[in-house]
Amino acid sequence: MRKKSKENEIKVAFQGEKGAYSEAVALEFFKAPIKTFGYQTLSEVFSALKNKKVDFAIVPVENSIEGSVGQTYDLLLKHNLKPLAEVYHKIEHCLISFPGENLKSIKIVYSHPQALSQCRKFLEKKKFKIIPFYNTAGSVKYLKEKKIKKAAAIASEISAKIYKMIIIKKGIQDNPKNYTRFLILSKKETKPTGFDKTLVIFRLKHVPGSLFSALKPFAKRKINLTKIESRPIVGRPWEYNFILEFEGHKKEEKIKKALKELKKVATFLKIVGSYERAKPI
Amino acid sequence: MRKKSKENEIKVAFQGEKGAYSEAVALEFFKAPIKTFGYQTLSEVFSALKNKKVDFAIVPVENSIEGSVGQTYDLLLKHNLKPLAEVYHKIEHCLISFPGENLKSIKIVYSHPQALSQCRKFLEKKKFKIIPFYNTAGSVKYLKEKKIKKAAAIASEISAKIYKMIIIKKGIQDNPKNYTRFLILSKKETKPTGFDKTLVIFRLKHVPGSLFSALKPFAKRKINLTKIESRPIVGRPWEYNFILEFEGHKKEEKIKKALKELKKVATFLKIVGSYERAKPI
Repeated sequence: MRKKSKENEIKVAFQGEKGAYSEAVALEFFKAPIKTFGYQTLSEVFSALKNKKVDFAIVPVENSIEGSVGQTYDLLLKHNLKPLAEVYHKIEHCLISFPGENLKSIKIVYSHPQALSQCRKFLEKKKFKIIPFYNTAGSVKYLKEKKIKKAAAIASEISAKIYKMIIIKKGIQDNPKNYTRFLILSKKETKPTGFDKTLVIFRLKHVPGSLFSALKPFAKRKINLTKIESRPIVGRPWEYNFILEFEGHKKEEKIKKALKELKKVATFLKIVGSYERAKPI
Repeated sequence: MRKKSKENEIKVAFQGEKGAYSEAVALEFFKAPIKTFGYQTLSEVFSALKNKKVDFAIVPVENSIEGSVGQTYDLLLKHNLKPLAEVYHKIEHCLISFPGENLKSIKIVYSHPQALSQCRKFLEKKKFKIIPFYNTAGSVKYLKEKKIKKAAAIASEISAKIYKMIIIKKGIQDNPKNYTRFLILSKKETKPTGFDKTLVIFRLKHVPGSLFSALKPFAKRKINLTKIESRPIVGRPWEYNFILEFEGHKKEEKIKKALKELKKVATFLKIVGSYERAKPI
């Protein structure tokens, strides 16, 4: 019986240690019970899905403070994996330690430099000794394994549960508006839901007005753009990959026509896929 | 005499530990002798320049693999510091250890997860034990201070010199085309050199075709765009900051006219500044 239920379990790949923000989002997103698999790099996450080691993958695409995750877009360009849905997740940094510790007993704080800098005001008030660590959830695991007392880690709420530690203070980030947008990936195409977005990556000749011409098919059909980004292609001076996301599904007539026109002006076009969009935050 | 020469020295702020890639670029860029000051966060780098603790700052704006450094653009929006020039720097990861160690004696490798993942093929072939660290140059410093033998760190060439270690192998990154673009910042405006770029940040109403209209002033004047990026403003659904870089100096007549027209369609416009551009790579 046990074996059977395990076989039916949905397998989801994420990047990071158990308790990473990505894993927390995956656990929230899937209503059915899932089994999560942490990989060290985003490249390994994509390979795991490609090689059918997992059924889905969750990958960060942009953060409201740090910006786009360039590597995710490069991997979406390289592989043929399909976005299924997007999820916005509020990053709530927690101060985590052993049961019995409290704000006054803590002397040292460990975490990833990004998390530390996002909690700067809180940390400065308390005058902790700061130790940068390679990973947020990994810093909780480290405290636990090494039994380091009078110390805390900054990481997600779920990482406290996983490593059986306590949350001393929740929401310690300076900027309460710290959100990450994730994409859930699968190997299959989605059907239109009526509330979708489409992601394409294309290249243009570097001549004045080329981007202007590429956006015309969308402007004249009143298609709402939700993201645009140029990324220089190293080794090819003045060539760029453009990442474009817009409202609508690639199977809708209006979108089909716009993409057909874009193809005429682009030197390269990859329609990564269409996915159900999250509500704006 | 000594005191006087120190007073005349150019002071430059960078983010990271001594030996960071940013510091290496600053040392190359300034022909005169400079004194570099490492700060833990980019925010502190901006503050140091703002508060005249330094004469210049060097900040990363985008990497060919990782993408844009969102935080740098946010800080350029927040502060009134002026870009002076851009520099492209090839990231050459080196395997660094104590004199006497070699490829065969090394068992463990320390570095920042990004550097580790960028050297994945090299590391896999050698079957080292991998230990993620918070910082590249910091991992060299750590090996040195803790006298950890049979171990190496992955970091810049200059960090080996600074910590008096040796380079066992240079250029171990998988992708030889790993470049970072930096901006040198000062407190003063630049004059046109005839080979400049201008950086602006603006907002538009989220209506279909708004970006198309915003790009028209540039397209019709054949102004070459070199970067465009939308960044969602959290807490204001459907509002974006657009980062736009293009060829030309804001004091040129053609550019002045284009910016005047852009201002009419934008709900907000900040002309961050014009700077001498680097040659394409």
